[in-house]
Amino acid sequence: MEDYRQKCINLLKERGVTLNDIADAARFLQADYHVDLLKEELLDSVLSVLAKREVQLAIMTAVELDKLAESGKMFDKDLEAILMRDEGLYGVDEVIAYGICNLYGSIALTNFGFIDKKKYGIIESLNSHGKSSGICNTFLDDIVGAIAASAASRFAHRWAR
Amino acid sequence: MEDYRQKCINLLKERGVTLNDIADAARFLQADYHVDLLKEELLDSVLSVLAKREVQLAIMTAVELDKLAESGKMFDKDLEAILMRDEGLYGVDEVIAYGICNLYGSIALTNFGFIDKKKYGIIESLNSHGKSSGICNTFLDDIVGAIAASAASRFAHRWAR
Amino acid sequence: MEDYRQKCINLLKERGVTLNDIADAARFLQADYHVDLLKEELLDSVLSVLAKREVQLAIMTAVELDKLAESGKMFDKDLEAILMRDEGLYGVDEVIAYGICNLYGSIALTNFGFIDKKKYGIIESLNSHGKSSGICNTFLDDIVGAIAASAASRFAHRWAR
Amino acid sequence: MEDYRQKCINLLKERGVTLNDIADAARFLQADYHVDLLKEELLDSVLSVLAKREVQLAIMTAVELDKLAESGKMFDKDLEAILMRDEGLYGVDEVIAYGICNLYGSIALTNFGFIDKKKYGIIESLNSHGKSSGICNTFLDDIVGAIAASAASRFAHRWAR
Repeated sequence: MEDYRQKCINLLKERGVTLNDIADAARFLQADYHVDLLKEELLDSVLSVLAKREVQLAIMTAVELDKLAESGKMFDKDLEAILMRDEGLYGVDEVIAYGICNLYGSIALTNFGFIDKKKYGIIESLNSHGKSSGICNTFLDDIVGAIAASAASRFAHRWAR
Repeated sequence: MEDYRQKCINLLKERGVTLNDIADAARFLQADYHVDLLKEELLDSVLSVLAKREVQLAIMTAVELDKLAESGKMFDKDLEAILMRDEGLYGVDEVIAYGICNLYGSIALTNFGFIDKKKYGIIESLNSHGKSSGICNTFLDDIVGAIAASAASRFAHRWAR
Repeated sequence: MEDYRQKCINLLKERGVTLNDIADAARFLQADYHVDLLKEELLDSVLSVLAKREVQLAIMTAVELDKLAESGKMFDKDLEAILMRDEGLYGVDEVIAYGICNLYGSIALTNFGFIDKKKYGIIESLNSHGKSSGICNTFLDDIVGAIAASAASRFAHRWAR
Repeated sequence: MEDYRQKCINLLKERGVTLNDIADAARFLQADYHVDLLKEELLDSVLSVLAKREVQLAIMTAVELDKLAESGKMFDKDLEAILMRDEGLYGVDEVIAYGICNLYGSIALTNFGFIDKKKYGIIESLNSHGKSSGICNTFLDDIVGAIAASAASRFAHRWAR
């Protein structure tokens, strides 16, 4: 199977998310432990997370679902409506996000829960933008949160060595 | 939010899966512990699993993805091809299945792993049918395995009381 | 197997945690959605979480590990030291907590991540108390966070019906 | 924090498990895909799994719990009895095992479910030995299964590249 990292970076960009945004969210998650940390120091971890095939396939699936909901071409109109209004009790988006975090251990999971509720930076902007008519970021905000949470966890484990 | 149980039963039927098929797979998973168990005795647990909102939303998402891949209307042609050939290292299907099993505890997860590899009954027939040209059961076989695994776990816990 | 709910309530009390403390932490997690919620309204959900066998066995295991570390009677002195200093990269405590949260779906998991980092109420007091010499709350703070997170998730799902 | 890999290899050996046993279980899990695979080819993956800190800490915790149950020195006599008889509905052992498998993605989890039920090789011998009076392998058989399942998953992903 191919390496889809560059493709995923392009997909994220097309949906309004830069590597810089993700590195900044990862930095926020580490800020309590390293006050002076620069987001540039997290970029390496973000790129490493994006190199994993399971992460790439999760991104591709998540972006596809958001775009399909926006396109109005889903077969299941109930599901389409749930995704378009980012229904709070719909949980498949978080489930796919956990599939990423799990690869980076328990710290990644708590990081995700925190940034998902706190909605820092790009997560907040995706979330509020997704409330606009015609736009669906239901999967994307969780996927981006999961990548940031995983990159922060990877950084913490490396720092400890 | 509405109760989508009947809708999900219909969706499963439309894709070739009956309640009876799922109850039989659940019975298979309990057969080592209860030799004489009838699939009818598992039907109640299958229906109870299908009553959970998180399960319903997982089913709706999974069936939608299979149908979209079949329709050839996905935006991402790499993803569409991966789903159509049920690529072994694609794991989002199992991740969504675990989202169901997790609700029923650790026994449900081991049950799922077993039936997913052993491919008993409806799981086997979905899997081999999904290899035919034009048909995609990439998500469905895992979702059905997860429902059977969860129903068997629920049955085991109730039996123990 | 027996119902160990009352036993677990006693174990938690012996370690300084009341049902009231847990209900208050669960209320905190729902406060963004229901400003006027009283902790009394969460008590029912806390008791329901504590009725699950998997939760009871997780509590018993967690409390045992904290007490054994305190007692200085562990076979593995490296492990004992890690638990006594609540080493940040030790993750088995969170893994056991996720075993509880998973039973209550994806909202419980994000709730847990949030309260684990935010350290509200009883979680904060267990955590800081655990830093004292001779005291180990390494497992307990995560278990209590998981029960609160699960009770809040159960409440949210019931409210939506 | 230290690297405890050699310590964990020693702990496993002390409890009757060799690297060879684990490599053979991992080979069994890959045998459907690579008929001629030798267990020696899996040894590298086993050692790589054992190099992860989260895996090492899970092993240390699991072995400690089995030894404490055997020693009769647990504070909680109900828990001690549950562990000594390897009670089927006790699930914390599997939860800790999933904490390992999750690091290696969804294939590791299905591998674990399969070998946990099928009880091949060292898993079977640990399990049946654990039924003897005075011996507790309640945690160990799941931990060994998780290491084998993870090593097989790592092998499958590398093979595909």
